[in-house]
Amino acid sequence: MSVSDNWLNKVNWTEDGLVPAIAQDADNGDVLMVAWMNREALKRTVETNEAVYWSRSRKKLWHKGEESGHVQKVKEIRLDCDEDVILLKVEQMGGISCHTGRHDCFFKKYENGQWVTTEPVLKDPAEIYRK
Amino acid sequence: MSVSDNWLNKVNWTEDGLVPAIAQDADNGDVLMVAWMNREALKRTVETNEAVYWSRSRKKLWHKGEESGHVQKVKEIRLDCDEDVILLKVEQMGGISCHTGRHDCFFKKYENGQWVTTEPVLKDPAEIYRK
Repeated sequence: MSVSDNWLNKVNWTEDGLVPAIAQDADNGDVLMVAWMNREALKRTVETNEAVYWSRSRKKLWHKGEESGHVQKVKEIRLDCDEDVILLKVEQMGGISCHTGRHDCFFKKYENGQWVTTEPVLKDPAEIYRK
Repeated sequence: MSVSDNWLNKVNWTEDGLVPAIAQDADNGDVLMVAWMNREALKRTVETNEAVYWSRSRKKLWHKGEESGHVQKVKEIRLDCDEDVILLKVEQMGGISCHTGRHDCFFKKYENGQWVTTEPVLKDPAEIYRK
């Protein structure tokens, strides 16, 4: 571990070596999604200026947009007071960050005892993910 | 459990019965903080229109602002596609959401291999928390 990794050691990783990361639209402030990072994901995010997460389901690094083209260009990286949450300010390529084909992942709004879907599907996921 | 609790059952609670909640400034989109909620916290948030979290350290419900006066008036509640993250759009009373006395918790910015503190302390925590 090199001296230059000190900034990575500052992060309060979970027992599983992860930290949650919020992706926020750098222009309009919309909260786009939340995913997880391990050390390598955060390091690569810094090195490439594109969001790299850790997929807990696939158990591998996930360069956001690698299949869909919906890459997130990282403009700023922030850490919170407890050093256990990352905030990325990003430019969202394609304007779609959610795997459902929507602009963002927070499309269920609480209304009178129900979660109501409020945002349209901009692109059919079957067209986004061709595999 | 009443029928009217169906919306609570939709949430993908962790094994510990919690869900992370992001508080975002409803006016300017700033991400203020991230905390945790259990069922009761989310229910009370809906009922009172003020953010109620679950304090993992104190192991009790935490009505944000109960000591500091920095209550969060809830304007909107959203759930993400995986139903495992809550987004609150709030009006932050006192303009301070962080226990350090800053506007928000994300005041450490990554710059050239370091986390640099970028936001001023608006009020001395010793004055905020008098106990």
